[in-house]
Amino acid sequence: MDDLLNRCKEAQKQLIKIGSEERKKLLFLIADAISANADSILKANRIDIENARENGMTPAFIDRLSLDEKRLKGIVGGIRDVADLPDAIGETIEELKPRSTIKIKKIRVPFGVICVIFEARPNVCADIAALAIKSANACVLKGGSDALNTNIAIVDVMKNAIKDFIDPDAITLIRSTDRKITDELLTKKEYIDLLIPRGSKKLIDYVVKNSKVPYIETGAGNCHLYVEKTADLSMALNIAVNAKYQRPSVCNAIETILVDEDIKDRFLPLLGEKFAELGITIYGCEKTLSSIKAEKATEEDFYTEYNDYKVAVKVVNGVDEAISHINKYSTKHSEAIITNDDNAWNKFSTEVDSACVYRNASTRFTDGGEFGFGAEIGISTSKLHSRGPMGIREITTYKFVIEGHGEIR
Amino acid sequence: MDDLLNRCKEAQKQLIKIGSEERKKLLFLIADAISANADSILKANRIDIENARENGMTPAFIDRLSLDEKRLKGIVGGIRDVADLPDAIGETIEELKPRSTIKIKKIRVPFGVICVIFEARPNVCADIAALAIKSANACVLKGGSDALNTNIAIVDVMKNAIKDFIDPDAITLIRSTDRKITDELLTKKEYIDLLIPRGSKKLIDYVVKNSKVPYIETGAGNCHLYVEKTADLSMALNIAVNAKYQRPSVCNAIETILVDEDIKDRFLPLLGEKFAELGITIYGCEKTLSSIKAEKATEEDFYTEYNDYKVAVKVVNGVDEAISHINKYSTKHSEAIITNDDNAWNKFSTEVDSACVYRNASTRFTDGGEFGFGAEIGISTSKLHSRGPMGIREITTYKFVIEGHGEIR
Repeated sequence: MDDLLNRCKEAQKQLIKIGSEERKKLLFLIADAISANADSILKANRIDIENARENGMTPAFIDRLSLDEKRLKGIVGGIRDVADLPDAIGETIEELKPRSTIKIKKIRVPFGVICVIFEARPNVCADIAALAIKSANACVLKGGSDALNTNIAIVDVMKNAIKDFIDPDAITLIRSTDRKITDELLTKKEYIDLLIPRGSKKLIDYVVKNSKVPYIETGAGNCHLYVEKTADLSMALNIAVNAKYQRPSVCNAIETILVDEDIKDRFLPLLGEKFAELGITIYGCEKTLSSIKAEKATEEDFYTEYNDYKVAVKVVNGVDEAISHINKYSTKHSEAIITNDDNAWNKFSTEVDSACVYRNASTRFTDGGEFGFGAEIGISTSKLHSRGPMGIREITTYKFVIEGHGEIR
Repeated sequence: MDDLLNRCKEAQKQLIKIGSEERKKLLFLIADAISANADSILKANRIDIENARENGMTPAFIDRLSLDEKRLKGIVGGIRDVADLPDAIGETIEELKPRSTIKIKKIRVPFGVICVIFEARPNVCADIAALAIKSANACVLKGGSDALNTNIAIVDVMKNAIKDFIDPDAITLIRSTDRKITDELLTKKEYIDLLIPRGSKKLIDYVVKNSKVPYIETGAGNCHLYVEKTADLSMALNIAVNAKYQRPSVCNAIETILVDEDIKDRFLPLLGEKFAELGITIYGCEKTLSSIKAEKATEEDFYTEYNDYKVAVKVVNGVDEAISHINKYSTKHSEAIITNDDNAWNKFSTEVDSACVYRNASTRFTDGGEFGFGAEIGISTSKLHSRGPMGIREITTYKFVIEGHGEIR
């Protein structure tokens, strides 16, 4: 393991040296190679799908695991988008104003080696490798065992595409499915500069509990929609449907709707009817149940990320109670208020302690692509280093570069 | 403990609400109060000094622990400097270019509650509280038992100064010296947003090993000076003396000097003579010992932060070997090259993986005050979030504030 990680660390130095234009070229080579080798990648993917079926995985799981020509084209397009992004490395973030005559520049630099531990989705390998190479970071990829054949196929194609120009260890896939490997990775502080867990809450909690390597938490999304009393109710309903129903399995879908007491008897019947029609189960507080028919919500419901056609609904007495509720139960991902009152919005946007706060828009926009980042490494729910969608700049750090003429203190 | 931390967390919300001008006023009130209560603070400090003497602490330790009128004036001046800094909170860091018609602003916000665990120095309480209030963060301070009386006196004065305008729990001192309290703090992720250990390597390693709260490592400084072959040798000697001798106990002092083979027979005799005169012991590699009289360096010497009148010296064969040596042994704090060769400097500044890289200046400049930050929370050797000296912006994070007109995906 040490040898593998050390080779990856050494390869990263080449990524800095070759410069921005060469790194961009590597990404186009990778995109072309994935296109040209679509058949072998899809073949490997069919083995993983076959195994998943034999192991009795759910259709939703198998769907997330599956590649086809269209999805592969999406991956290739994503890599080309990342290639075309402006370079971030070497950028002067700031010139400082020091006390003395020395000159201090704050310069953007790569982290070094980034390790991403992720579960089933096979697009993650290509997305992470593209963002890493663009930002002159080497990457260590540890995927779930369910996608191992697909991951090997994709990574081998990528390594082959770049091997004549750079040490291919810059993209390192952990090919063992032994879970002990994850434990080992979490201790390798001398080789890995940043660790990003992408996957289930269980995986993320495990990393938080055990990692000695600096990490960024991602993905837990207990998101809220608050319908304030001045809201345009048809807009509120439209956004509620989009944020809950369009893709319930994702982290930026909403899990709880908060409704102002003043409008509950106008809004809840609309919501109840529409959600019943869509097959969404409502878990309501006492006051909700006095307005519409629904399941009774427990305290636990408000902590739950359903990732399903289920939603908790709570009636609140104004913006202060809505903010308190959110700051207590939320995973600090994305929260929206529907309002026509600027004061309510100012209060909400200032006091809600989450990565993304929305006025009159769906939380589903919390996404690297939607934010204009090309692709994303993940969506951070940490406050340390980066928050919300993480693009290439979010996997960089900085150094101070200082020039003098012999100055001493 | 939970109650104490929760009160601190609630008080932080007031710090945001009162706004920038009020926070600035609080700092001037604190500065005035420390001035007005100098006698009681110095009296408390004398008790700590007395105890330290009885416990047989070293003169250096007692010096670090001691306050006098001049040092207290320095603390008060520091608080006023921080008060006068431009505000960072609420600043729009960036307007994004999203795919859709929503408007996305990246806004600078406080972390929330910052906990600093520190050792003897009594100025830390006031410095941290000032930077925290300026940036709308509440702080939890856990100092060493040796300075407990002084810390209580300073914090009580600060709390008293602000209590008519804001909940004084915004500055919370842990008044117990039980070491178990530190263990407890390291688990309080629901109340503490950021933890900063300031002190010995032992303390920092303990935090890295045990903390569940996000933290930033600070202060370990195995710093290097590399005298490249084109260096102005009198400048190199002058900087070597400053960086090693002016204040050897600090983290930005150098611990190893690397000398190019080509100039070793010209530079080492100068260095040897000067350092002998100053009473600095040199631990030299084989090649150093062939040029000058010195102790023999072991592998361990190159890993050592002496914090003393001791230095390791190694002869290297050009800039590549110097960079490899630094990247292997350094704590990633501050490294300097003395050179007249732009290519050597470019290579050094790009490839050395440390927070601060210097050309022709002393590493002693790595300091919040020297960088123009007013004061500092600490000097980060992490790559995550902030690197090098940390001022008020380094204890902030950001959120995305998004406005739409009913947009859905």
